[in-house]
Amino acid sequence: MPSSSAPPAEPAAAADASPRPRARAAIEGLHAYVPGEQPTWADTARPLRPVVKLNTNENPYPPSPRALEAVAALPAEALRLYPPPASDRLRAAAAAALNHPAGRGFTAKSVIGTNGGDELLRLLITAFCEPAPMAAGSGPGTGGIGLTTPSYSLYGVLAGIHGATATEVPRDPDTLAPPEPETIAAAWNATGSRLGFVVNPHAPSGRREEAAWLVRLADAFEGLLVVDEAYADFADADAAGLVAPAGDARTDVLLLRSLSKGYALAGLRVGFGVGHPSLIALLDKARDSYNLDAYAQAAAAAALADRTHAEASWAAVRGERTRLTAALRERGFGVLDSQSNFVLARVAGGPGEARRLYLGLKSNDVLIRHFDTPALADRLRITVGTPEQVDLLLEVLDGLR
Amino acid sequence: MPSSSAPPAEPAAAADASPRPRARAAIEGLHAYVPGEQPTWADTARPLRPVVKLNTNENPYPPSPRALEAVAALPAEALRLYPPPASDRLRAAAAAALNHPAGRGFTAKSVIGTNGGDELLRLLITAFCEPAPMAAGSGPGTGGIGLTTPSYSLYGVLAGIHGATATEVPRDPDTLAPPEPETIAAAWNATGSRLGFVVNPHAPSGRREEAAWLVRLADAFEGLLVVDEAYADFADADAAGLVAPAGDARTDVLLLRSLSKGYALAGLRVGFGVGHPSLIALLDKARDSYNLDAYAQAAAAAALADRTHAEASWAAVRGERTRLTAALRERGFGVLDSQSNFVLARVAGGPGEARRLYLGLKSNDVLIRHFDTPALADRLRITVGTPEQVDLLLEVLDGLR
Repeated sequence: MPSSSAPPAEPAAAADASPRPRARAAIEGLHAYVPGEQPTWADTARPLRPVVKLNTNENPYPPSPRALEAVAALPAEALRLYPPPASDRLRAAAAAALNHPAGRGFTAKSVIGTNGGDELLRLLITAFCEPAPMAAGSGPGTGGIGLTTPSYSLYGVLAGIHGATATEVPRDPDTLAPPEPETIAAAWNATGSRLGFVVNPHAPSGRREEAAWLVRLADAFEGLLVVDEAYADFADADAAGLVAPAGDARTDVLLLRSLSKGYALAGLRVGFGVGHPSLIALLDKARDSYNLDAYAQAAAAAALADRTHAEASWAAVRGERTRLTAALRERGFGVLDSQSNFVLARVAGGPGEARRLYLGLKSNDVLIRHFDTPALADRLRITVGTPEQVDLLLEVLDGLR
Repeated sequence: MPSSSAPPAEPAAAADASPRPRARAAIEGLHAYVPGEQPTWADTARPLRPVVKLNTNENPYPPSPRALEAVAALPAEALRLYPPPASDRLRAAAAAALNHPAGRGFTAKSVIGTNGGDELLRLLITAFCEPAPMAAGSGPGTGGIGLTTPSYSLYGVLAGIHGATATEVPRDPDTLAPPEPETIAAAWNATGSRLGFVVNPHAPSGRREEAAWLVRLADAFEGLLVVDEAYADFADADAAGLVAPAGDARTDVLLLRSLSKGYALAGLRVGFGVGHPSLIALLDKARDSYNLDAYAQAAAAAALADRTHAEASWAAVRGERTRLTAALRERGFGVLDSQSNFVLARVAGGPGEARRLYLGLKSNDVLIRHFDTPALADRLRITVGTPEQVDLLLEVLDGLR
């Protein structure tokens, strides 16, 4: 193949013109997932300003000191050598954390550790969904994923990367309540969806469906129901009972958990899947051999073991969530009750006003999230911060109105 | 769907019998990659014995102290917040490391950071290869990967997970020398291979092809040539010139580099891809949003900046490689000249004797690698250790013969 004719000194400028090998059509046409802005400690291009960062749902309180101690205690040998390939201690710690309340019977075989919850989502789609061309052989658009929308946009992005189709069932435009579970399942089943994704508590609304609702959905759906519990630590209850070995453990439900929010370890990229050992063993075959590094394994296991520390942050977030919700309603925003660590606020003035407020807050170093999609353009998603952060948010907001 | 009928107390035992949802045929039938044994610091099931670990090609010398300092210097905020999504500092540090010798002109746009080199391999296959059903539509087995065998077995495993086919061109059974590059390319082109993988220095032989050979292969191959340089730090030269922006940068070659071996950071899982910015931008679309955690980014960037430390270990490994090769030849093993941090030793007594020696060494706490495949069954792969480790290996070996 010909070499590039790019001028030597300007490789970036020549990027678009170069005759590089073509990728799969699904990748060439891909619109990548757009993460929230991350003006982090590592951004040395400008001095750090005291940003109030309420845009990507991090825990406002620090991680367990035990996590930092576990990292500090690791010898240099832990870096030199390959890490434990199966993240054994992390799995055991996750199982122990899942056994609250006691008697659920989780063991390390119920858990797979992943490089953030995102890796688990990718593994699931890789393992269960057919790329579109296969789908074409057995009817248009079959074998993909089922969604309720709006939802975490990465689900669709990952399906697109894989080449799988997505069957979307719209939620109520006002309340973001889902249809009846049997209605959702019927739509997913009609396209032969292999996976159905429900984030519960829901993002970006914060509303939560009860376990009985999930059971109805799992009963009616013919594929594997994935309950994304990334925010479950902030809710009144979770769905672990559905897959608990000591209960009537289902083999058609898999839970996603994350250390990013509840355990304040977003920087470490650790999530895990919870489900029947037969599902876990299958996903283990598809993951990268050493998918979690030594530091992440050690810190995450230590954080999971220090549940008391994490629970204090969950309680604080719940309390501040109540105050933030009330304060926003007082100011005329339409705010749904949230079971998560964020709230979704509808702006009476519509999309233009929502965007104005988002930008106005940003210019005052208060970052929140505004999704530029039709279903959400008139709303703002605000992570629940510390009392001081919430005070500052409200103060700047009042100045903008 | 029905719930599991597994007895509550024995979820693992019921795994095989459970009626879980079926995965893709490619995954159900998958033989997962088998990593080498890892009796690590984290294995608390038995007390640590002083194992001589020469089985998975780790650097025998510790990582740069700068890497550990960089981790210690990170604030708790670096864990609480999401990491820099694009690993900017790591990319800049990798570009700087690639600019030895000076004047190559690499910038951060030439580099993508990945969760080990393994993630880069997976990204490439995801981005460029068609799953088998698509291939079936345009002729049997097209659109997959090209290999020369034997080679790093993960290439084929990852292609299998994706559902892509592999076109294998055998190397010389004795010397593991590859055929002429035009011969290889013709075989790969005949099946429409989108990617061709060459690990150089070669694993598991340690032999290295010159840049001119790679140029001939890239010229003749119609897809993207991936040169896996995981071991290039231990060789006399590398292939970075082929993609250096200050040279006649090719858009049809991508290099893989790893921090695991050369920089003694196997526990951290950091690799990177090097190539034309148009290729890097494409791969960025397919990767997980936050694929590298905060610790890994910081430690890897610091290690790359301390080239002097790493170079000392490379020189020591080269010296010990020469001694180990000579010592094994003196003992009657057939050893190829290696440009890597391991040697491949052919056992005159054949496969049975090779396995006996492997097991005998293992029972004496000396771990090396024996591949149970026809092409390699009469050989032992031995990582180059410290002089003390090599002495112990030879001593135990002499006791077994």
